[in-house]
Amino acid sequence: MKKIINDPNSVVHEMLNGLVTTSNHLKLLDNSTVIVRTDAPIPNKVGIVSGGGSGHEPAHAGYVGKGMLDAAVAGEVFTSPTPDQVFEAIKAVDTGNGVFLVIKNYTGDVLNFEMAAELAEAEGIQVEKVIVNDDVAVEDSSFTTGRRGIAGTIFVHKIAGAMAESGAPLQAVKQVAEKVVANVRSMGMALTPCTVPASGKPSFHLEENEMEIGIGIHGEPGIERKPIATAEAIATELTEKVLGDYDFSGEVAVMVNGLGSTPEMELHIINKKVQAILADRGITVYKTYVGEYMTALEMAGCSVTLLKLDDEIKQLLDAPSEAQAFRQ
Amino acid sequence: MKKIINDPNSVVHEMLNGLVTTSNHLKLLDNSTVIVRTDAPIPNKVGIVSGGGSGHEPAHAGYVGKGMLDAAVAGEVFTSPTPDQVFEAIKAVDTGNGVFLVIKNYTGDVLNFEMAAELAEAEGIQVEKVIVNDDVAVEDSSFTTGRRGIAGTIFVHKIAGAMAESGAPLQAVKQVAEKVVANVRSMGMALTPCTVPASGKPSFHLEENEMEIGIGIHGEPGIERKPIATAEAIATELTEKVLGDYDFSGEVAVMVNGLGSTPEMELHIINKKVQAILADRGITVYKTYVGEYMTALEMAGCSVTLLKLDDEIKQLLDAPSEAQAFRQ
Repeated sequence: MKKIINDPNSVVHEMLNGLVTTSNHLKLLDNSTVIVRTDAPIPNKVGIVSGGGSGHEPAHAGYVGKGMLDAAVAGEVFTSPTPDQVFEAIKAVDTGNGVFLVIKNYTGDVLNFEMAAELAEAEGIQVEKVIVNDDVAVEDSSFTTGRRGIAGTIFVHKIAGAMAESGAPLQAVKQVAEKVVANVRSMGMALTPCTVPASGKPSFHLEENEMEIGIGIHGEPGIERKPIATAEAIATELTEKVLGDYDFSGEVAVMVNGLGSTPEMELHIINKKVQAILADRGITVYKTYVGEYMTALEMAGCSVTLLKLDDEIKQLLDAPSEAQAFRQ
Repeated sequence: MKKIINDPNSVVHEMLNGLVTTSNHLKLLDNSTVIVRTDAPIPNKVGIVSGGGSGHEPAHAGYVGKGMLDAAVAGEVFTSPTPDQVFEAIKAVDTGNGVFLVIKNYTGDVLNFEMAAELAEAEGIQVEKVIVNDDVAVEDSSFTTGRRGIAGTIFVHKIAGAMAESGAPLQAVKQVAEKVVANVRSMGMALTPCTVPASGKPSFHLEENEMEIGIGIHGEPGIERKPIATAEAIATELTEKVLGDYDFSGEVAVMVNGLGSTPEMELHIINKKVQAILADRGITVYKTYVGEYMTALEMAGCSVTLLKLDDEIKQLLDAPSEAQAFRQ
């Protein structure tokens, strides 16, 4: 295992302690794995909380900041945070206007975030949630009933975050988040596996000339393993599958996301073809994001996300954000 | 070779065409490899140009934007751009106030940028330059006389860019850029090599338990190969070598830079130790940057950069930037 770490069992703790030094706007709650805005809880604002297993950085702590999340809860690598940890986050951001949870659709996350919501409601905190399931590759998966939540989650953070920042009430935040979930689709692929530090071994094996289409962000099986194709063929396969799942006519936002060790150069090459496919279909691209937004440690590969836009989503997408991984 | 590409010989062309779709503020000059601000040339402003071989993304096109570079010139992968290409960039950003070149210290870059400067001066364009040589690992190297230029270059972009944006004349831009070069030091290490697409083979070999300290961003030899150490030992070795090279007492900015396939988690773990070392020495950290700023394709590894600050540099570091890879 080639990793720059100290102890495989303390990577999350050390990461979070390093991470908070990069911004005066972030703090780590004492004895926890919760990163919150230093100005939280913010009066008269719905608090937005997300999180999940670590290893997907910059998700989710990179999205904490004015205009996006109020708090992110980190579990162990590829492991859900506990209900107690999520409950800590909820308490840290609530000011009586309620808290909204953005949950990626993995069984552990859904269970633990929902249990945390119950704990919070028992203390009189209003909690609502949305479950993101943007990955069109497979129905049900190793850790998921239904579709998995992947990079499309970042658009939910952004739009729910902007809505909350505008002072909108909890139900309005929930409504627009649900619209984003309905309008967003993704699919990914990988060239190499990744290694969870505590395991020390790659999570699966791909031959030297092989790729896997539709793979999950924890290495869960995808649709097909086959010889590595060209970037154009890969972009076409991912984009066509996404387009075939929903009516994207009109205007979209595009995200080409790197899974960890894919050079930015290759993401731009994928993006070039995605843009060409959309132009051919008469779909207008309003905004394009290329980079590492939702990773799987050092997995090589990428995902393509499309978000169908309307005026409301466009306005919220364009709103300012001070989150480190989505500054605009 | 596991890469998401079409033709190894067209990666730069395709990358740049993909990249410009990510921002309305960037354009690719016709039949060139020059990315410029769409609003360039900007009246009454010194133009700032940088560039170099591709494969170091987001360097340098990611730093084009208001407050940083006016143009970035991309060569083939790990290959200097030609004088003609650099000359195109200079002409695209000059409005009579002169153009400032930020050059990383590689023999090819220095020769070709200087030749471009001569072509420009022959047409009456005032040109000044700075050569960045922040890498303390080795004196002279495969492609370099003297020290190599690595991630510290980003601070030169930022500070020279902010100075130019303020309306300062060419000599003032040059002066502050030289101060940054005098005040910045870096050192890197790698766990794995990277593969230039056109070569198809890794540029060097490291054993499964081996790392290289002081390696260059093109895989040029460093100081030593030895068994992989802990993150704390690696952070200590890099930081102590940097600290030993210059008097950093006072205030500094820190950059922990990923070379391509190192998970952000590991960079934060390195950063945690860097912060501890600086605190022990009584050095105040004003600002910390952790992420991929100057990469070497998919090389696994990192570098640590320290920049000594004074009031002028702090103010320019804090100035707004609209560059995609350094937005603030």
